[in-house]
This record gives sequence, structure tokens and C-alpha cells, in this order.
Amino acid sequence: MRYLTAGESHGPQLTMIIEGLPSGMPFSKEKVDEELLRRQKGHGRGRRMQIESDEIQILSGIRFGKTTGAPVALAIENKDWAKWTEIMSPEPEQEKADKRRVSRPRPGHADLNGAIKYGHRDMRDVLERSSARETAARVAVGAVAKQLLEFCGITIAGHVVRIGSVGTERIDPSQWTMEEIRATSEKSPVRCLDSAAEKAMIREIDEAKEEGDSLGGIVEVIVENVPVGLGSFVHYDRKLDARITQAIVSINAFKGAEVGIGFEAGERKGSAVHDEILWSEERGYYRKTNRLGGFEGGMTNGEPIVVRGVMKPIPTLYKPLQSVDIDSKEPFAASIERSDNCAVPAASVVAENVVAWEIAHALLETFTSDKAADLLREIEGRHREVKDF
Amino acid sequence: MRYLTAGESHGPQLTMIIEGLPSGMPFSKEKVDEELLRRQKGHGRGRRMQIESDEIQILSGIRFGKTTGAPVALAIENKDWAKWTEIMSPEPEQEKADKRRVSRPRPGHADLNGAIKYGHRDMRDVLERSSARETAARVAVGAVAKQLLEFCGITIAGHVVRIGSVGTERIDPSQWTMEEIRATSEKSPVRCLDSAAEKAMIREIDEAKEEGDSLGGIVEVIVENVPVGLGSFVHYDRKLDARITQAIVSINAFKGAEVGIGFEAGERKGSAVHDEILWSEERGYYRKTNRLGGFEGGMTNGEPIVVRGVMKPIPTLYKPLQSVDIDSKEPFAASIERSDNCAVPAASVVAENVVAWEIAHALLETFTSDKAADLLREIEGRHREVKDF
Amino acid sequence: MRYLTAGESHGPQLTMIIEGLPSGMPFSKEKVDEELLRRQKGHGRGRRMQIESDEIQILSGIRFGKTTGAPVALAIENKDWAKWTEIMSPEPEQEKADKRRVSRPRPGHADLNGAIKYGHRDMRDVLERSSARETAARVAVGAVAKQLLEFCGITIAGHVVRIGSVGTERIDPSQWTMEEIRATSEKSPVRCLDSAAEKAMIREIDEAKEEGDSLGGIVEVIVENVPVGLGSFVHYDRKLDARITQAIVSINAFKGAEVGIGFEAGERKGSAVHDEILWSEERGYYRKTNRLGGFEGGMTNGEPIVVRGVMKPIPTLYKPLQSVDIDSKEPFAASIERSDNCAVPAASVVAENVVAWEIAHALLETFTSDKAADLLREIEGRHREVKDF
Amino acid sequence: MRYLTAGESHGPQLTMIIEGLPSGMPFSKEKVDEELLRRQKGHGRGRRMQIESDEIQILSGIRFGKTTGAPVALAIENKDWAKWTEIMSPEPEQEKADKRRVSRPRPGHADLNGAIKYGHRDMRDVLERSSARETAARVAVGAVAKQLLEFCGITIAGHVVRIGSVGTERIDPSQWTMEEIRATSEKSPVRCLDSAAEKAMIREIDEAKEEGDSLGGIVEVIVENVPVGLGSFVHYDRKLDARITQAIVSINAFKGAEVGIGFEAGERKGSAVHDEILWSEERGYYRKTNRLGGFEGGMTNGEPIVVRGVMKPIPTLYKPLQSVDIDSKEPFAASIERSDNCAVPAASVVAENVVAWEIAHALLETFTSDKAADLLREIEGRHREVKDF
Repeated sequence: MRYLTAGESHGPQLTMIIEGLPSGMPFSKEKVDEELLRRQKGHGRGRRMQIESDEIQILSGIRFGKTTGAPVALAIENKDWAKWTEIMSPEPEQEKADKRRVSRPRPGHADLNGAIKYGHRDMRDVLERSSARETAARVAVGAVAKQLLEFCGITIAGHVVRIGSVGTERIDPSQWTMEEIRATSEKSPVRCLDSAAEKAMIREIDEAKEEGDSLGGIVEVIVENVPVGLGSFVHYDRKLDARITQAIVSINAFKGAEVGIGFEAGERKGSAVHDEILWSEERGYYRKTNRLGGFEGGMTNGEPIVVRGVMKPIPTLYKPLQSVDIDSKEPFAASIERSDNCAVPAASVVAENVVAWEIAHALLETFTSDKAADLLREIEGRHREVKDF
Repeated sequence: MRYLTAGESHGPQLTMIIEGLPSGMPFSKEKVDEELLRRQKGHGRGRRMQIESDEIQILSGIRFGKTTGAPVALAIENKDWAKWTEIMSPEPEQEKADKRRVSRPRPGHADLNGAIKYGHRDMRDVLERSSARETAARVAVGAVAKQLLEFCGITIAGHVVRIGSVGTERIDPSQWTMEEIRATSEKSPVRCLDSAAEKAMIREIDEAKEEGDSLGGIVEVIVENVPVGLGSFVHYDRKLDARITQAIVSINAFKGAEVGIGFEAGERKGSAVHDEILWSEERGYYRKTNRLGGFEGGMTNGEPIVVRGVMKPIPTLYKPLQSVDIDSKEPFAASIERSDNCAVPAASVVAENVVAWEIAHALLETFTSDKAADLLREIEGRHREVKDF
Repeated sequence: MRYLTAGESHGPQLTMIIEGLPSGMPFSKEKVDEELLRRQKGHGRGRRMQIESDEIQILSGIRFGKTTGAPVALAIENKDWAKWTEIMSPEPEQEKADKRRVSRPRPGHADLNGAIKYGHRDMRDVLERSSARETAARVAVGAVAKQLLEFCGITIAGHVVRIGSVGTERIDPSQWTMEEIRATSEKSPVRCLDSAAEKAMIREIDEAKEEGDSLGGIVEVIVENVPVGLGSFVHYDRKLDARITQAIVSINAFKGAEVGIGFEAGERKGSAVHDEILWSEERGYYRKTNRLGGFEGGMTNGEPIVVRGVMKPIPTLYKPLQSVDIDSKEPFAASIERSDNCAVPAASVVAENVVAWEIAHALLETFTSDKAADLLREIEGRHREVKDF
Repeated sequence: MRYLTAGESHGPQLTMIIEGLPSGMPFSKEKVDEELLRRQKGHGRGRRMQIESDEIQILSGIRFGKTTGAPVALAIENKDWAKWTEIMSPEPEQEKADKRRVSRPRPGHADLNGAIKYGHRDMRDVLERSSARETAARVAVGAVAKQLLEFCGITIAGHVVRIGSVGTERIDPSQWTMEEIRATSEKSPVRCLDSAAEKAMIREIDEAKEEGDSLGGIVEVIVENVPVGLGSFVHYDRKLDARITQAIVSINAFKGAEVGIGFEAGERKGSAVHDEILWSEERGYYRKTNRLGGFEGGMTNGEPIVVRGVMKPIPTLYKPLQSVDIDSKEPFAASIERSDNCAVPAASVVAENVVAWEIAHALLETFTSDKAADLLREIEGRHREVKDF
């Protein structure tokens, strides 16, 4: 299973092709649109997000509510494309090209190094694609993967565990069902499970906004009921935890990722890190704790997957950063292009969906990939094997 | 450029094939052996490490001190193979197979989930390959990549920034040359640049050892003089920072990775995260700070790459963890197979080398890949372009 | 460089995403549309081809007539989609699904084995994607690759060398420029360079049509001015001739491919197969003959690439083939869905374009891939190296 | 599943790593050695082949006669390595390097274009790796894949259908069991099933030898009991017939490949090409003929796979070809390095084994890939599905 995405922030549309889905998987346009909507919400988003309401068009691969096995092409139209046809024209019109050239790279963006790499003197040729608009494409793709997980009995949820200086305690998994995590984070404008922290986060966002500053944060994704043995220790590039890490860090503005207690594992002693193995007639093998976040040896171990990613603050600030015009080499104060000052809640939705893709990908790599029904049967077989091992 | 590794902890040898190296690259066996030696040192390693002294055999792809362009095969013999021929026999001798079966999975290892995945009732069939012995193979491969980087004027260094409760301050890059970082960390038994922290780390390791406990930590890798524009923002799976993250987390026992200030970026305000862009006649574009660790938009931006990875404590402890025998389902106290209690200094060498591979890989993806001399010429061209942009 | 295609024969559109094009490459929509038009022509095509006139929409990756480096998404609308919205609906409407079910597999198509693989009782779920309609997508993608080749001074041409019993002699390359091959084949309704054979081919097609039968044939693709050393002997999966073979056989209805004199090489003696190496001050190294079709050791050798592919006759005939209904298991005479009886001229256009892709792909693998201008400079460097070797 | 091979013709050994085999697959060293031996036989081979007797060393991934799931590393030692240590030294000894330089490229080999690509003035740096010696590595790898096929009830056989001017009729599959094909070809010194043709082939080889000339030919590979639906029509690069074609053409000296009646399909009418679909209570679906060689839509259809490849004559002749010294630019008569004059029988063994790999690869892509026993169970499930469809 693989996918490609295409599309610029102000182009006509985002386009996605997913190749390798099993046939017979129930497919709901509404569920994809719902994920797109979730991505657009959250305290700290500017006005653009509130106006647009993304939805997909299904262009292939789905018939009568199910995947056929053929590639699935999806599109998300850009609502304000009409205003941009001239600036974004594919036609060779040099005059127009010169008129609206962007010559001022923004710190924290791909503008300058992207322009050097691809030889662009108009940095719009970079920023249109490097924009976080692309995360809508990844959410749509992930939302398809999520439907495969759902079909296979695997549930996923994301929430925000830090915004700026406000962090939360690790949740006690015995106190929260997946359903509760999903419902509670969904109701929160910052997707936080802890209502005291939620209030503090909102306040911090508002204060930063007044100062013309921005905030990042940390998101957590949990996946439950994953079969044992996805990924593999036999070769480094098959370790699923490492692949998930890559997927998370490849989200725009993410600077790190960790599994289970992650960086805290560097501070603790071994006896306070590893998860003891228990067994009972009813549950089979299980762990007293889940500090390793569902992974041993790069493989799922049956405990819930717990991963976190850190998002840096949005680089475009009212309080401007210094930069240099590439024509004149004169310094300038980097311009503002949008008014969000915190996108962490939205990023937690993106993170959920990119993780969903990696899990679905691992399922199809491990088990059969032709028919969804066969895949489900095999996953159930693996669950039984674990029980009987 | 790609590679495969093979080999068990107690098999005859580790075997590595590297395919896709440019021709005409100077190749030194000694430099590879030196990296292997570096991996074997460090306070906290047990006796096995002190006895063995790994070295490579060159099996193909090198002639008269240079790569030919053909695949490079390398082997590292296991010195104590003679003692293991019976237990590790490839011959179908069921009697022997039954005699020394491992039925007791160790927490924190791939033993149990690996055995379930691959259907092994003898967990030796898992632990032999999941062993951190494999990191020797990755170091050897990375040591080849390092020689390509060296040929291209790119330098790399690693050091330890945390062991257990002892962390160090971020180094001020203006105070340290790469040469100094390499020399200082090399002299330290814990590969730490800060001599006060070094002492505390050693003490903490010794104390943990006495308690029968183990320690993890955090390592940092720095890469200097990397051309601008490795990786790409145009598609998520081409972001080089994310690939490096995967490479690091795929090292045995690593649970997370971050770029630049990483997780700290979630706590700070935007104005304290992004690196302002400056320009001067002599230096061209440069940054006042390097909090983003050399990456914007998933691409190198010319500043030094700074990445960190966290290693969990070694799971095999004198102070045993509880587990369950897979035959009897009886609980037992998980057995000790080796006497290291902290492998973080060694892991920093592994991290250096896996990062070296990713950079070398990105170079060959971006620029020409046939001849090392042409590659160097193109990299120099890119450096000039940056100057003149 | 990679691409994905999506889309059904009677769906709303074909969708293509090309990822990895260098920036700054001149891009002409007209040139793509021209290739699509060429694919639709040819004696032996039925009415559908004559009515439709495919053209692309540019959805991303192109700005002001040039590639930006971002993924290029293209679409080709299906003109008669309006008539098919009900039968091809993505909505879960089981009633409609049952009404128009295809239960009769056609021999020579993917219908039966595709239905078994993906578990479809309605074989429309197979035939919509397995249709040769998909070759329009591959032509569009190849037409983009062709523009890269053109930018790099590489020319490509295709022509038909056999239809049914009518074959032609191998052309004497000293007698034909690429321009002449292109112009002459373009004027021929069967894309044949030999006017006597052309008449016989047309007659044979017409006769077969009257009999209710169909014809296949053989197409040849020639590529000139390719730099020496694309592909590599160092690993089997890097041999470019083999990759081109795969690309050709992956065209719908193709059953084989050969390089240079191909299968004839099995009949001749060695002294009548290999191409002697000559050298002169003006030309550098060259060959007296080009029986190996521009490849030695899986690499280009500077002589024109010459490859051929064989297309089987269209399986849907007026003169029906026997098959079995999957519901009743009763035999039936396989139904006719379209009226083409020979698609070889069109297939030669497809072959040209899929070969163009493979060459472009090899260029970007071998040389730099960021900017088209740098790529061109490197290719020119390689040409000089050959001269001076 | 993937593999890499390494090693030079006169280096210490060939090295192979296979990654991704399922666990629990029976592994026999003898079966691999037998394939290696088969590759070394055949009328027309020179003395080197008769002296050496290749055998593998197992370096990892196998324990007590079964795969563990870990990468399998194999080596084939070169028996005469001792004589070559100086010429093939990896040490930087420029003096030795200059002494035995090869400056005379042989037509039909990778010598000249390989030297230009990789910048070698000593063409030994090319010819050592481009040598057909590498096919021993591919046979060893294929012989492992063959054991997986055998475990899954899939049989494979190869034979020679043409050497020079002597061709054979297509065999009537109803007249030959796989066992008979294997046994009969095994006994023939030219691996030919037709004893009259066999004699003529031997005569033609002997005559060519006397003339100082060489011969190529055509080999056929047949695979029986393959499950329906390997490969896929949904994306061009998943078509299994095309992948097999690539695998065959990537064998040294192969110039083309075809599936079923292949190039003949271009000459026949449609009614004489396609295979009608029949059904009976006992057999389920089956075909009256198998002209398409077991493939429709790029997928297996349950009929035996039949593929052919053409090998050009060995380029190194007693009757020399003209070439040019790269130093002096003087013409010379290309030198002889070995005394085989026909390697087609051996090539048929290579072809069998590379096809075996592609089938095994497709099995693991389609079905589960963790345990061999589960794979077998799924394949049997697919056979039942076909029966019940």
C-alpha cells in the first residue's frame, strides 16, 4: 500500500492516490470529511480555517460503498481557487510571473533552502507546496486507512498533552476507554483530556496571540487492539515504531517523536522502564505497565500503541522575525501570511491519521492484502494464536 | 544506495551488503575497524565487549583502496562461534534443537512478540537476531558512509548528553569545533563533553550496577558542512529529518528522536524557536541561532544538523523482572544473559553511523551517483550556488 | 521519480500524480494532449476512439509553464461520465449494484482471475480498471517524461513493424533520421514506415474485421542521443534494458519484449551478433552495427536504443469465444464490448511513452534530480567524458 | 522479500543476503548446491566450469533445518581465489594496480560503457562484476525461493527450446508431466526435451566451436500449480508477467522475454490466441488452451506459467571481434578470456531460478509473510476459493 499527494495551497485542489487497498472494504465519504473537519477546528486557528470546509470528491476505486481493489483517487477542492488563477497559472506567462514574485524568505519555513534547492527566485514556487495545507491530503489518506482499521477492530485516538508551558500528566489507561478519550478530546477546543489544563492552554494561546506570538505543543496518539507482531526486528527498516516516528516527524512543523515514555526512558532506571510479563487464563499474556508504548523489538506486543510528537510554534508571527530579501540582500521583518497562532489541536488530528496509515500499511504487509474480509479473518487468527501461545 | 545486514549474535558472522556506492571513493578498512572499536568501548559495558575486538573482512566491491561501484560485501566474524556451532547449527537435527530451548521471554526484548509472530517455541530463534549485536553491522555500514561524507568534506560527531538522572546543558556551538567535540568525547569513558557531568554519569552507572539496575540516556549527533537542500518538502516521505528520526529509533533500545531543540520546541513561544535569517558578504546566508537543528521544511538549511535519540536502559538486569514461562505459564524472574548495565556511550557511536548513512543516502539521491569525484564536484557547486543565491 | 495512476474506464476521470520531476523543466499542456490524440488514432480503432478527444487538466506542480519540483497531478476527464453515474456510483446503493451485474468473464481479459483475486461477483469491478483505457494515463505520464528527454536533447520515436501476418524488414538506421521516422509513421494510418507493408496491414485489418476477428502485432521504439551509462551491471535490478522490458510488457495486451535483434540473437552465431567497437577522432567510440540495441551489460552504450514489444490481438471479437457464466456455470459466447479490432498503431504510441518514462527515470537516478538545468549540464558533461575517454 | 548479491568473478566469494523469508520453511543446503551444480553443466561449457564445483555456506537465518525469519546470508567461495589475491587486492597499492591494467574493451560486454560510467581506466574493475559468474548468486537465491515454492506445492521446470538454428516444437502439455520435463531435460546435455533436436544442437555447438564461434538460444520455464491472482491489473508495476520478464532479461546476455506464445501472438488472429474458459464439476474453471502462458491482466489465471527468454551468443570468441584500446586508440582483435562457446543449457537453470524468485516474491506480497505454514494454509484457501467461485 502506498500513496502520493499533490497540490498547492492556492492551486485548484489537493489530489491523492492510494494504491493497494484491499477490496471489499466499506468506504464512507462522510468519515473522511469528518476527519477533514476535525483538522480545521481548534482554538488558535485563524479565520481561513473557519470559513473553508474541506470535503473530498471520490474519483476512482470505490463502487457502491466499497473499495474495489483499484487505486482510490480523491480530491479536495480549494474553495478560493478562483481568486488565484492568475498568480498560480500553469501557462507560460512571464509577465504575470514577474509581477507578484516573493523574494522574502520567512524563517522557520522551507522558503530559502527550498528556493536554493529548486532554483526558484520566486519563493511562491516553494511555499505553495511546503504549506501545511498539505496535511489535509494526509488526513484524507489517513481517514481511509482508519476505515480499514475500524473494519479490523482497531481503534485510534489522539489528544493534546502540551501547549506551550502547559503540560498534562500521563493518563492512566485503566481510567479511560478509547471511546472516552475520543469523546472528551473531541469536545475540548484544544483536544485536551484534562479540563484544568484545557483552560490554561486556552489562556496561554490567547495571551500569546495578544503578544503577537505563537505556540507549539505535544500530541499523543493511542492505538488499541492492534495484533501482536506488526513490524519486525529482523531488519532495521522494518521496525514499525521507527516508521511511525518517521511518519510523525514528516508532518509539517514536527521536530521529534517518541514511543511510550520516550525521552523519559533516558532518565529512569531499567527496573522502572520495562513492562513485566504476566499471564492469566482469561487474558493470556499481558503487561502490568505499558511504558514501552506497545512496542518491543520494533514490533507491536499487544499493548496499546502510545506515541507522541512535538510540534514547533507556527513560524509566522505578528511579532516579526528578521530575515533578508534575496534580491537586495537587505534585512526585513518577516511578513505575516495568516492569523493562526496555535495549530496543535489540529496537528493531533493529523498525527492520528498518519499513524493510522502506518498501522494499516503494516497490516497489509504482514497479512493478506487482496480482500478486506480475508485480512480480518487473518487478524482474528493472530489474536487467537496469541491467546493459545 | 541501499543495504542489507544479516547474522545472529552467536552465528558465524555478521554479513553486510552495500549496493549503490559511487566508484572511486577512497576506502579504508582501518576506518571501519576503528568505528567498530569505538562501539565496543564505554563505561558500563560488560566483559564480552572487552574481549572481542570486531574487525571487518572485505569481500567485494573494493579494489586497490577504492570502491569500484560494485556492491561492497563485508563480514564481521564472531570470535566465539566455535563454542556455538552445535546450538546454532543450520542442519536439521531435532534432538539438539529440543535440548537447549529457550522458553522464558525477557521483558523489554523481542522474545515474546517475536516468538508469536514467527511461531517459535524456542525463543533463541528470536533473540539471536534481535540482539544489539546487529548494531555492529550498522556501524560497519555507517562507517563506509562516513568515508563518503569525509570525501565530500562533511564531518560528523556524536556525544552523550544524558545518562539516567545526569543531563548536560546544550553546547554552545560557537565554543566547540567539530574536531574538539570528537576529540573530547573520544577521551571520555561515557563520551560526554562536560567533565563534571562525566564524573556524575560514571558514578550513577556504578551505583546502578551495585543495585543490579541499568541506565539509559540521550545521545546527540552533529553533522557539519552539509549542502543546502538535502531532503525535500515536496512529498512527506522525502523529508530528511524524518528519515533520520526513523534511522535513530530503529537502533535497538531507542524510543524516540528529535531534531534541534526537539521536544523543547513544544514549550517555547515561536519567537524563541525560529532561527532568524541573516546575510553577509563573506558568509552569505546564515542564522543567528540553530534551534531547528539544520532543518526547515524537511530539508537541510546549511546550519549543522543536530539530532538526538533516547535509549532505554538495558532490559536485562541483575535485579530481575517478572515474566512467564511459555510452556508452563508459571511466573519466573527473568534471567540475565550479559553484564552490561549501560550502553549509552556505545549507542552514541551507533547513532553517528546510522545518521552518516542517511546523509550519504540523501547526497546520492540528490546529486550524481556514479563517481565519487563527480559527486564532490556537484556538492561544491551547490555550496557556490548558496553563496551566490 | 515515481508515479501512480487511478481511474476506471467509465469513471469520472483518470488521475495521475508524478512525483520527483526536477524543477524548471518547460512543460507544455499541448504536447501532452498531442500524445493523447496520437494514442486515439490508427486504422482499426472503433467509434469510441473517434468521438472522444482526450486532454489533460493540470492540477498542480506547474507554474508559468515550468515544473516547480512539486508533484504534478493531471486529470483526463471521461467525456461520457454523465451516462455512467448510476452504474459507477461510489455510494452504497445495493439495489443498483445488483441490477447491472456482469457475471460473464471474457477470455483474454482480467475478468475471471481478477474477480477471484478480489472476491467480486460483479466483474465490472474488475473490467473497469483492467481496461486499456488506463493506457491514456500512462501516455500522459510518458508525455511529461518525453518533455524532459526533449529538454535533454534525447529524441524518441515509435513505429509498427508487424500487424498479423504482415511484417517489415528491420530499418537501416543510416537511411532514416529520427525526424523522418517520426514524420513518416505519423502520416501512416498504421504507423508503419514501409508503404507496401502499410497497405497490406490495412487490408489485413479490414479482412479480419469482416471475419469478426482481431489482430495484434509488433511495435518498435527507438531512442537517440541517450548518454552512455544509464542503468548498471552492478546489480540485476538496475539493468535498464530489463526495466524497459518490464515497462513494455506491463502495457495492456503485451506478451513480450526484446532489445536490439532480440529473439533473432538466439538463432545467429556470436560473430553475427556483437557490435564491434571502432574509434575515430571526430566520433570517438562508435559501433559498426547496433544489433544489441544500444545496451551492453544492462547499460546504454551510446548507440540508439532499439526495443520491441508484441501485442496480442484484442480479445473481444465479433466472432465470439466460449466462456462460462459464473452464476449458472452455463457456457456462453463471450460478449462484445467495443468495436476496435486492431490497436497496434495506438499501442506503438503507448510504448514510446512508457519507454520515455524509463529513460527519464534512469537519467534522474544517475544524475542530479533537483533542477532540470543542472541535469542537462551533467548530461552534457557525460557526453564530453565519452568523447575524451 | 528482497535480496542483494555481491562479489566479483575472481574475488574471494559471492555473497548473498535474502531478507523477508517466512519462518519455519524447510531449508536444505543440498538443494541449493544441486541447483549450483546444474548451472555448471551443459554441453558447450569450457574447462573452468568443469573444475569448480560451487557450494554454499550458510551464514545466518537458518537453524536446525528451517528458516527463522531472520535474513539468510549465503556465500559461494571462489576456489581459485588464492591465485588472484594480488590482482584483486582491496589494499591501496597503486603499483600493483598499474601492472595488470585491462585497457581493451570486449564487444558485447559491459567493459567500455561500464568503464565510462564508473570512470575506470582499468576495465577489470568492470568485468569482474559484470561477469556471468554473478548468475551463480542468483541461482543460489532462486534455489531458496524454489524451496518455498516446493513447500507450497508449486513446481517449476526449465528446458532449452532453441540453440542457434536448431529449434523445437512447442511441447504439448497434455503429453508431459512436470516430473517428466524435469527428468528428461536433466538427462540431456543441452537440457532439451526433443532427442532429435538435442543431437542437432550438440552438433551445431561443436561445429561453431571449431569455427571459433559461439551460439545463443532460447529457454523456456514452466511453473505449475500457481494460485490464481498473483500479480495485479490495478497498477502497471504490479503485473507479474512484466516483472518476470524483467527478471529474465536481467540475466547476463539475455535480450528478450515473452509469455505464452509471446511474439507469435503478433502474427495470429485473435480467435487463435485467446484461451476459452470452460468449467466442469471436477476441475472448476479451466482453459482449453494455454496460449497466454498462465497470465491474463498481468495476473496468474491458474494455468501453468510459460515464459521464454532469449540468450545472445557468448561474446568472447576464438574468432575475434574488432575493438579499440582505450589508451592508444589503436584497433585490436578482442581477446579471449574463456573457452565456453554455448551457455544456453546453464542459462535455462538460471532462468528457472530467477522465475522461482519472482513467484515466491508474489506469494509473500499477496498472502501472509510471517510463517511458512500460514502461507501454505492461505494458498490452499485460494485454491478452494477458485474451486467454489
